[in-house]
Amino acid sequence: MTNAPTDPQHRFSESERAAVYRAIELRRDVRHFRPSPPLPDAMLERLLQAAHQAPSVGLMQPWRFMRLSTPAWRARLHPVVDAERQRTAEALGERGADFLQLKVEGLKDCAELLAVVLAPDDGTVFGRRSLPREMAWCSAACAVQNLWLAARAEHLGLGWVSMFDPVELAQVLQLPTGSEPLGLLCLGPVDRFYDQPMLEETGWRQRRPLQDLLMEPPRDAD
Amino acid sequence: MTNAPTDPQHRFSESERAAVYRAIELRRDVRHFRPSPPLPDAMLERLLQAAHQAPSVGLMQPWRFMRLSTPAWRARLHPVVDAERQRTAEALGERGADFLQLKVEGLKDCAELLAVVLAPDDGTVFGRRSLPREMAWCSAACAVQNLWLAARAEHLGLGWVSMFDPVELAQVLQLPTGSEPLGLLCLGPVDRFYDQPMLEETGWRQRRPLQDLLMEPPRDAD
Repeated sequence: MTNAPTDPQHRFSESERAAVYRAIELRRDVRHFRPSPPLPDAMLERLLQAAHQAPSVGLMQPWRFMRLSTPAWRARLHPVVDAERQRTAEALGERGADFLQLKVEGLKDCAELLAVVLAPDDGTVFGRRSLPREMAWCSAACAVQNLWLAARAEHLGLGWVSMFDPVELAQVLQLPTGSEPLGLLCLGPVDRFYDQPMLEETGWRQRRPLQDLLMEPPRDAD
Repeated sequence: MTNAPTDPQHRFSESERAAVYRAIELRRDVRHFRPSPPLPDAMLERLLQAAHQAPSVGLMQPWRFMRLSTPAWRARLHPVVDAERQRTAEALGERGADFLQLKVEGLKDCAELLAVVLAPDDGTVFGRRSLPREMAWCSAACAVQNLWLAARAEHLGLGWVSMFDPVELAQVLQLPTGSEPLGLLCLGPVDRFYDQPMLEETGWRQRRPLQDLLMEPPRDAD
Protein backbone atom coordinates (compact mmCIF):
# COMPACT_ATOMS: atom_id res chain seq x y z
CA MET A 1 0.00 0.00 0.00
CA THR A 2 1.45 3.33 -0.93
CA ASN A 3 1.25 6.41 1.22
CA ALA A 4 0.05 4.54 4.27
CA PRO A 5 1.40 6.05 7.47
CA THR A 6 3.39 2.86 7.99
CA ASP A 7 5.08 3.20 4.60
CA PRO A 8 8.57 4.64 5.20
CA GLN A 9 8.11 6.89 2.21
CA HIS A 10 5.26 8.61 3.98
CA ARG A 11 6.46 8.49 7.57
CA PHE A 12 8.06 11.43 9.27
CA SER A 13 11.05 10.64 11.45
CA GLU A 14 11.28 12.26 14.87
CA SER A 15 13.76 14.79 13.58
CA GLU A 16 11.56 15.63 10.59
CA ARG A 17 8.57 16.07 12.85
CA ALA A 18 10.60 18.31 15.13
CA ALA A 19 11.63 20.41 12.12
CA VAL A 20 7.99 21.05 11.21
CA TYR A 21 7.18 22.13 14.76
CA ARG A 22 10.31 24.25 14.82
CA ALA A 23 9.35 26.17 11.67
CA ILE A 24 5.92 26.76 13.16
CA GLU A 25 7.42 28.00 16.42
CA LEU A 26 10.16 30.22 14.98
CA ARG A 27 8.12 31.81 12.16
CA ARG A 28 7.67 35.54 12.69
CA ASP A 29 5.83 38.36 10.97
CA VAL A 30 8.87 40.34 9.90
CA ARG A 31 9.15 44.07 9.26
CA HIS A 32 12.94 44.44 9.39
CA PHE A 33 14.84 43.18 6.35
CA ARG A 34 18.42 43.19 5.24
CA PRO A 35 18.52 45.11 1.93
CA SER A 36 19.33 42.38 -0.56
CA PRO A 37 19.28 41.64 -4.26
CA PRO A 38 16.26 39.79 -5.68
CA LEU A 39 15.98 36.13 -4.69
CA PRO A 40 17.22 33.53 -7.15
CA ASP A 41 14.35 32.54 -9.44
CA ALA A 42 14.56 28.90 -8.35
CA MET A 43 14.18 29.85 -4.69
CA LEU A 44 11.22 32.12 -5.34
CA GLU A 45 9.57 29.42 -7.40
CA ARG A 46 10.12 26.86 -4.62
CA LEU A 47 8.45 29.19 -2.14
CA LEU A 48 5.52 29.93 -4.43
CA GLN A 49 5.12 26.24 -5.13
CA ALA A 50 4.83 25.68 -1.37
CA ALA A 51 2.10 28.31 -1.27
CA HIS A 52 0.39 26.68 -4.20
CA GLN A 53 0.28 23.32 -2.37
CA ALA A 54 -2.16 24.78 0.14
CA PRO A 55 -5.60 23.33 0.67
CA SER A 56 -8.47 25.15 -0.98
CA VAL A 57 -12.17 24.71 -0.62
CA GLY A 58 -13.50 22.71 -3.55
CA LEU A 59 -9.97 22.78 -5.01
CA MET A 60 -10.66 26.30 -6.26
CA GLN A 61 -7.09 27.55 -5.69
CA PRO A 62 -8.21 31.17 -5.51
CA TRP A 63 -4.75 32.61 -4.74
CA ARG A 64 -2.90 34.71 -7.28
CA PHE A 65 0.58 36.19 -6.90
CA MET A 66 2.05 39.29 -8.49
CA ARG A 67 5.75 40.13 -8.20
CA LEU A 68 6.23 43.82 -7.55
CA SER A 69 9.86 44.02 -6.57
CA THR A 70 11.04 46.75 -8.92
CA PRO A 71 12.00 50.10 -7.39
CA ALA A 72 9.19 51.72 -9.37
CA TRP A 73 6.55 49.45 -7.84
CA ARG A 74 7.86 49.92 -4.33
CA ALA A 75 7.76 53.67 -4.81
CA ARG A 76 4.21 53.40 -6.14
CA LEU A 77 2.95 51.15 -3.32
CA HIS A 78 4.63 52.72 -0.32
CA PRO A 79 2.34 55.77 -0.23
CA VAL A 80 -0.72 53.49 -0.45
CA VAL A 81 0.42 51.71 2.71
CA ASP A 82 1.54 54.87 4.43
CA ALA A 83 -1.80 56.58 3.90
CA GLU A 84 -3.54 53.66 5.61
CA ARG A 85 -0.95 53.82 8.37
CA GLN A 86 -1.95 57.42 9.02
CA ARG A 87 -5.65 56.53 9.00
CA THR A 88 -4.92 53.71 11.42
CA ALA A 89 -3.11 56.09 13.76
CA GLU A 90 -6.14 58.39 13.74
CA ALA A 91 -8.51 55.49 14.39
CA LEU A 92 -6.37 54.36 17.32
CA GLY A 93 -6.98 57.59 19.22
CA GLU A 94 -4.70 57.91 22.23
CA ARG A 95 -2.50 54.98 21.14
CA GLY A 96 -2.00 56.59 17.71
CA ALA A 97 1.27 58.27 18.64
CA ASP A 98 2.73 55.04 20.03
CA PHE A 99 1.56 53.21 16.93
CA LEU A 100 3.40 55.64 14.66
CA GLN A 101 6.65 54.73 16.44
CA LEU A 102 6.34 51.10 15.32
CA LYS A 103 7.87 49.83 12.12
CA VAL A 104 4.89 48.21 10.43
CA GLU A 105 6.27 47.24 7.03
CA GLY A 106 9.48 46.58 5.14
CA LEU A 107 8.34 47.44 1.62
CA LYS A 108 11.49 49.33 0.72
CA ASP A 109 14.08 46.95 2.19
CA CYS A 110 12.79 43.46 1.49
CA ALA A 111 14.40 41.48 -1.32
CA GLU A 112 11.04 40.71 -2.92
CA LEU A 113 7.65 42.36 -2.79
CA LEU A 114 4.65 40.27 -3.80
CA ALA A 115 0.94 40.93 -3.82
CA VAL A 116 -1.34 38.08 -2.86
CA VAL A 117 -4.66 38.52 -4.58
CA LEU A 118 -7.96 36.69 -4.57
CA ALA A 119 -9.09 35.69 -8.04
CA PRO A 120 -12.55 36.74 -9.19
CA ASP A 121 -15.09 34.27 -7.82
CA ASP A 122 -15.14 31.24 -10.12
CA GLY A 123 -18.51 30.07 -8.84
CA THR A 124 -17.21 27.09 -6.87
CA VAL A 125 -20.10 25.76 -4.77
CA PHE A 126 -18.39 22.75 -3.16
CA GLY A 127 -17.73 23.54 0.50
CA ARG A 128 -18.62 27.22 0.23
CA ARG A 129 -22.30 27.51 -0.66
CA SER A 130 -22.95 29.08 2.72
CA LEU A 131 -19.60 30.85 3.24
CA PRO A 132 -18.42 31.85 -0.22
CA ARG A 133 -16.15 34.82 0.44
CA GLU A 134 -14.91 33.53 3.77
CA MET A 135 -13.75 30.21 2.37
CA ALA A 136 -11.93 31.89 -0.50
CA TRP A 137 -10.04 34.10 1.96
CA CYS A 138 -9.26 31.14 4.18
CA SER A 139 -7.84 29.17 1.27
CA ALA A 140 -5.61 32.06 0.24
CA ALA A 141 -4.49 32.55 3.85
CA CYS A 142 -3.44 28.89 4.04
CA ALA A 143 -1.31 29.49 0.95
CA VAL A 144 0.38 32.43 2.61
CA GLN A 145 1.00 30.41 5.75
CA ASN A 146 2.70 27.70 3.67
CA LEU A 147 4.87 30.36 2.06
CA TRP A 148 5.68 31.79 5.49
CA LEU A 149 6.83 28.48 6.92
CA ALA A 150 8.84 27.56 3.84
CA ALA A 151 10.49 30.98 3.95
CA ARG A 152 11.43 30.50 7.60
CA ALA A 153 13.02 27.16 6.77
CA GLU A 154 15.01 29.00 4.06
CA HIS A 155 16.08 31.64 6.64
CA LEU A 156 13.98 34.26 4.95
CA GLY A 157 11.64 36.63 6.72
CA LEU A 158 8.13 37.37 5.52
CA GLY A 159 5.76 40.13 6.55
CA TRP A 160 2.09 40.20 5.58
CA VAL A 161 1.16 43.86 5.13
CA SER A 162 -2.59 44.41 5.31
CA MET A 163 -2.48 48.17 5.77
CA PHE A 164 -4.04 49.50 2.60
CA ASP A 165 -7.36 50.54 1.19
CA PRO A 166 -8.31 47.45 -0.83
CA VAL A 167 -10.23 49.46 -3.43
CA GLU A 168 -7.30 51.79 -3.96
CA LEU A 169 -4.79 48.93 -4.13
CA ALA A 170 -6.99 47.02 -6.59
CA GLN A 171 -6.98 50.12 -8.80
CA VAL A 172 -3.23 50.58 -8.58
CA LEU A 173 -2.67 46.92 -9.46
CA GLN A 174 -5.36 47.10 -12.16
CA LEU A 175 -6.98 43.96 -10.81
CA PRO A 176 -9.83 42.47 -12.81
CA THR A 177 -13.35 43.10 -11.57
CA GLY A 178 -14.15 40.87 -8.60
CA SER A 179 -10.50 40.35 -7.71
CA GLU A 180 -9.40 41.54 -4.27
CA PRO A 181 -5.97 42.18 -2.78
CA LEU A 182 -5.38 40.34 0.50
CA GLY A 183 -1.89 41.41 1.25
CA LEU A 184 1.46 42.77 0.22
CA LEU A 185 4.10 40.25 1.16
CA CYS A 186 7.56 41.49 2.05
CA LEU A 187 10.02 38.64 1.67
CA GLY A 188 13.75 38.35 2.00
CA PRO A 189 16.87 37.93 4.10
CA VAL A 190 16.90 39.40 7.60
CA ASP A 191 19.62 40.22 10.11
CA ARG A 192 17.66 38.50 12.86
CA PHE A 193 14.33 36.87 13.58
CA TYR A 194 12.43 38.35 16.51
CA ASP A 195 12.54 36.22 19.68
CA GLN A 196 8.90 37.08 20.25
CA PRO A 197 6.35 38.56 17.86
CA MET A 198 7.46 42.12 17.18
CA LEU A 199 4.30 43.58 18.70
CA GLU A 200 5.16 41.74 21.91
CA GLU A 201 8.85 42.72 21.85
CA THR A 202 7.86 46.36 21.54
CA GLY A 203 5.30 46.12 24.34
CA TRP A 204 2.33 46.85 22.06
CA ARG A 205 0.37 43.72 22.98
CA GLN A 206 0.88 40.35 24.67
CA ARG A 207 -0.02 36.90 23.42
CA ARG A 208 -2.50 34.91 25.46
CA PRO A 209 -2.01 31.36 26.72
CA LEU A 210 -3.62 28.61 24.66
CA GLN A 211 -5.77 27.66 27.61
CA ASP A 212 -7.68 30.94 27.32
CA LEU A 213 -8.71 30.11 23.77
CA LEU A 214 -10.20 26.69 24.37
CA MET A 215 -13.98 26.82 24.66
CA GLU A 216 -16.07 24.34 26.58
CA PRO A 217 -18.93 22.95 24.53
CA PRO A 218 -22.40 23.63 25.89
CA ARG A 219 -23.67 20.79 28.05
CA ASP A 220 -26.89 19.90 26.32
CA ALA A 221 -25.46 17.41 23.84
CA ASP A 222 -23.05 15.69 26.21
CA MET B 1 23.48 38.06 18.39
CA THR B 2 20.70 35.62 19.13
CA ASN B 3 18.28 34.31 16.56
CA ALA B 4 20.31 35.62 13.65
CA PRO B 5 20.05 33.35 10.62
CA THR B 6 23.76 32.55 11.08
CA ASP B 7 23.21 31.41 14.66
CA PRO B 8 23.12 27.59 14.63
CA GLN B 9 20.24 27.70 17.08
CA HIS B 10 18.14 29.41 14.45
CA ARG B 11 19.41 27.78 11.30
CA PHE B 12 17.56 25.00 9.55
CA SER B 13 19.71 22.18 8.23
CA GLU B 14 19.05 20.88 4.74
CA SER B 15 17.20 17.89 6.13
CA GLU B 16 15.07 20.08 8.38
CA ARG B 17 14.23 22.35 5.47
CA ALA B 18 13.31 19.33 3.39
CA ALA B 19 11.02 18.11 6.18
CA VAL B 20 9.09 21.38 6.16
CA TYR B 21 8.62 21.20 2.39
CA ARG B 22 7.65 17.56 2.70
CA ALA B 23 4.89 18.26 5.21
CA ILE B 24 3.59 21.00 2.91
CA GLU B 25 3.64 18.68 -0.08
CA LEU B 26 2.13 15.59 1.57
CA ARG B 27 -0.61 17.34 3.57
CA ARG B 28 -4.07 16.39 2.39
CA ASP B 29 -7.65 17.36 3.18
CA VAL B 30 -8.75 14.03 4.58
CA ARG B 31 -12.26 12.57 4.68
CA HIS B 32 -11.39 8.92 5.35
CA PHE B 33 -10.30 8.07 8.88
CA ARG B 34 -9.45 4.91 10.74
CA PRO B 35 -11.90 4.69 13.65
CA SER B 36 -9.68 5.27 16.66
CA PRO B 37 -9.83 6.16 20.33
CA PRO B 38 -9.37 9.81 21.32
CA LEU B 39 -5.88 11.21 20.87
CA PRO B 40 -3.62 11.37 23.92
CA ASP B 41 -4.12 14.72 25.63
CA ALA B 42 -0.45 15.63 25.21
CA MET B 43 -0.64 15.08 21.44
CA LEU B 44 -3.81 17.11 21.05
CA GLU B 45 -2.29 19.91 23.09
CA ARG B 46 0.87 19.86 20.96
CA LEU B 47 -1.26 20.20 17.83
CA LEU B 48 -3.37 23.00 19.26
CA GLN B 49 -0.23 24.78 20.42
CA ALA B 50 1.02 24.64 16.84
CA ALA B 51 -2.24 26.23 15.71
CA HIS B 52 -1.92 28.85 18.42
CA GLN B 53 1.57 29.83 17.15
CA ALA B 54 0.02 31.17 13.96
CA PRO B 55 0.39 34.78 12.92
CA SER B 56 -2.56 37.05 13.59
CA VAL B 57 -3.22 40.57 12.51
CA GLY B 58 -2.44 42.97 15.34
CA LEU B 59 -1.72 39.89 17.51
CA MET B 60 -5.47 39.51 18.01
CA GLN B 61 -5.38 35.68 18.07
CA PRO B 62 -9.04 35.42 17.07
CA TRP B 63 -9.11 31.60 16.89
CA ARG B 64 -11.04 29.54 19.41
CA PHE B 65 -11.24 25.75 19.58
CA MET B 66 -13.99 23.55 20.95
CA ARG B 67 -13.55 19.80 21.36
CA LEU B 68 -16.68 17.95 20.27
CA SER B 69 -15.48 14.38 20.11
CA THR B 70 -18.18 12.71 22.19
CA PRO B 71 -20.64 10.43 20.40
CA ALA B 72 -23.46 12.77 21.44
CA TRP B 73 -21.83 15.75 19.74
CA ARG B 74 -21.07 13.82 16.58
CA ALA B 75 -24.69 12.70 16.43
CA ARG B 76 -25.83 16.29 16.96
CA LEU B 77 -23.53 17.77 14.33
CA HIS B 78 -23.78 15.21 11.56
CA PRO B 79 -27.31 16.26 10.48
CA VAL B 80 -26.20 19.91 10.37
CA VAL B 81 -23.49 18.99 7.88
CA ASP B 82 -25.66 16.57 5.97
CA ALA B 83 -28.42 19.16 5.48
CA GLU B 84 -25.89 21.52 3.89
CA ARG B 85 -24.60 18.65 1.80
CA GLN B 86 -28.10 18.20 0.39
CA ARG B 87 -28.44 21.93 -0.28
CA THR B 88 -25.05 21.87 -2.01
CA ALA B 89 -26.19 19.01 -4.23
CA GLU B 90 -29.26 21.02 -5.25
CA ALA B 91 -27.16 24.11 -5.93
CA LEU B 92 -24.80 22.07 -8.11
CA GLY B 93 -27.56 21.21 -10.56
CA GLU B 94 -26.48 18.55 -13.01
CA ARG B 95 -23.32 17.71 -11.02
CA GLY B 96 -25.40 17.19 -7.87
CA ALA B 97 -25.75 13.44 -8.30
CA ASP B 98 -22.00 13.01 -8.80
CA PHE B 99 -21.37 15.20 -5.79
CA LEU B 100 -23.55 13.01 -3.59
CA GLN B 101 -21.29 10.05 -4.43
CA LEU B 102 -18.28 11.77 -2.87
CA LYS B 103 -17.36 11.31 0.76
CA VAL B 104 -17.15 14.89 1.98
CA GLU B 105 -16.57 14.49 5.71
CA GLY B 106 -15.37 12.03 8.33
CA LEU B 107 -17.32 13.31 11.35
CA LYS B 108 -18.28 9.90 12.61
CA ASP B 109 -14.95 8.10 12.13
CA CYS B 110 -12.28 10.62 13.07
CA ALA B 111 -10.57 10.25 16.44
CA GLU B 112 -11.27 13.87 17.36
CA LEU B 113 -13.82 16.41 16.22
CA LEU B 114 -13.05 20.07 16.86
CA ALA B 115 -14.82 23.26 15.97
CA VAL B 116 -12.68 26.23 15.00
CA VAL B 117 -14.50 29.40 15.83
CA LEU B 118 -13.84 33.09 15.37
CA ALA B 119 -14.05 35.04 18.63
CA PRO B 120 -16.36 38.05 18.78
CA ASP B 121 -14.54 41.05 17.30
CA ASP B 122 -12.28 42.53 19.98
CA GLY B 123 -11.96 45.85 18.19
CA THR B 124 -8.37 45.38 17.03
CA VAL B 125 -7.58 48.19 14.57
CA PHE B 126 -3.91 47.43 13.89
CA GLY B 127 -3.61 45.96 10.38
CA ARG B 128 -7.34 45.54 9.86
CA ARG B 129 -8.95 48.99 9.85
CA SER B 130 -9.86 48.52 6.20
CA LEU B 131 -10.31 44.71 6.16
CA PRO B 132 -11.68 43.79 9.58
CA ARG B 133 -13.52 40.53 8.90
CA GLU B 134 -11.14 39.38 6.19
CA MET B 135 -8.08 39.67 8.40
CA ALA B 136 -9.73 37.88 11.33
CA TRP B 137 -10.69 34.99 9.05
CA CYS B 138 -7.24 34.88 7.48
CA SER B 139 -5.58 34.74 10.91
CA ALA B 140 -7.76 31.83 11.98
CA ALA B 141 -7.09 30.05 8.69
CA CYS B 142 -3.34 30.32 9.28
CA ALA B 143 -3.90 28.63 12.65
CA VAL B 144 -5.74 25.76 10.96
CA GLN B 145 -2.96 25.42 8.40
CA ASN B 146 -0.39 25.11 11.20
CA LEU B 147 -2.52 22.43 12.81
CA TRP B 148 -2.83 20.66 9.47
CA LEU B 149 0.91 20.52 8.85
CA ALA B 150 1.70 19.46 12.41
CA ALA B 151 -0.93 16.73 12.14
CA ARG B 152 0.63 15.46 8.91
CA ALA B 153 4.02 15.28 10.57
CA GLU B 154 2.35 13.23 13.35
CA HIS B 155 0.82 10.91 10.69
CA LEU B 156 -2.65 12.20 11.43
CA GLY B 157 -5.16 13.26 8.85
CA LEU B 158 -7.20 16.42 9.10
CA GLY B 159 -10.28 17.48 7.17
CA TRP B 160 -11.71 21.00 7.30
CA VAL B 161 -15.47 20.67 6.92
CA SER B 162 -17.10 23.92 5.83
CA MET B 163 -20.44 22.43 4.83
CA PHE B 164 -22.88 23.89 7.34
CA ASP B 165 -25.18 26.82 7.77
CA PRO B 166 -23.06 29.08 10.00
CA VAL B 167 -26.09 30.56 11.76
CA GLU B 168 -27.45 27.12 12.58
CA LEU B 169 -24.07 25.83 13.75
CA ALA B 170 -23.54 28.91 15.93
CA GLN B 171 -26.89 28.16 17.57
CA VAL B 172 -26.08 24.50 18.11
CA LEU B 173 -22.72 25.40 19.66
CA GLN B 174 -24.33 28.25 21.62
CA LEU B 175 -21.62 30.63 20.47
CA PRO B 176 -21.59 34.09 22.00
CA THR B 177 -23.02 36.93 19.92
CA GLY B 178 -20.54 37.99 17.24
CA SER B 179 -18.72 34.68 17.26
CA GLU B 180 -18.74 32.69 14.02
CA PRO B 181 -17.91 29.06 13.23
CA LEU B 182 -15.27 28.63 10.51
CA GLY B 183 -15.03 24.91 10.37
CA LEU B 184 -15.47 21.51 11.89
CA LEU B 185 -12.09 19.82 11.97
CA CYS B 186 -11.97 16.04 11.67
CA LEU B 187 -8.64 14.84 13.03
CA GLY B 188 -7.15 11.43 13.59
CA PRO B 189 -5.32 8.37 12.31
CA VAL B 190 -5.87 7.29 8.72
CA ASP B 191 -5.22 4.12 6.78
CA ARG B 192 -3.64 6.09 3.98
CA PHE B 193 -3.02 9.62 2.80
CA TYR B 194 -4.33 10.42 -0.67
CA ASP B 195 -1.62 10.57 -3.34
CA GLN B 196 -3.42 13.54 -4.85
CA PRO B 197 -6.13 15.76 -3.36
CA MET B 198 -9.22 13.59 -2.99
CA LEU B 199 -11.21 15.76 -5.39
CA GLU B 200 -8.53 15.11 -8.00
CA GLU B 201 -8.30 11.38 -7.29
CA THR B 202 -12.05 11.07 -7.78
CA GLY B 203 -12.00 13.09 -10.99
CA TRP B 204 -14.10 15.93 -9.56
CA ARG B 205 -11.62 18.66 -10.41
CA GLN B 206 -7.97 19.13 -11.39
CA ARG B 207 -5.34 21.34 -9.86
CA ARG B 208 -3.83 23.99 -12.06
CA PRO B 209 -0.12 24.61 -12.60
CA LEU B 210 1.46 27.37 -10.54
CA GLN B 211 2.32 29.24 -13.71
CA ASP B 212 -1.38 29.88 -14.36
CA LEU B 213 -1.73 31.67 -11.03
CA LEU B 214 1.10 34.16 -11.42
CA MET B 215 -0.13 37.55 -12.56
CA GLU B 216 1.93 40.05 -14.48
CA PRO B 217 1.87 43.50 -12.94
CA PRO B 218 0.47 46.26 -15.12
CA ARG B 219 3.17 48.09 -17.02
CA ASP B 220 2.63 51.65 -15.94
CA ALA B 221 4.82 51.60 -12.83
CA ASP B 222 7.68 49.60 -14.29
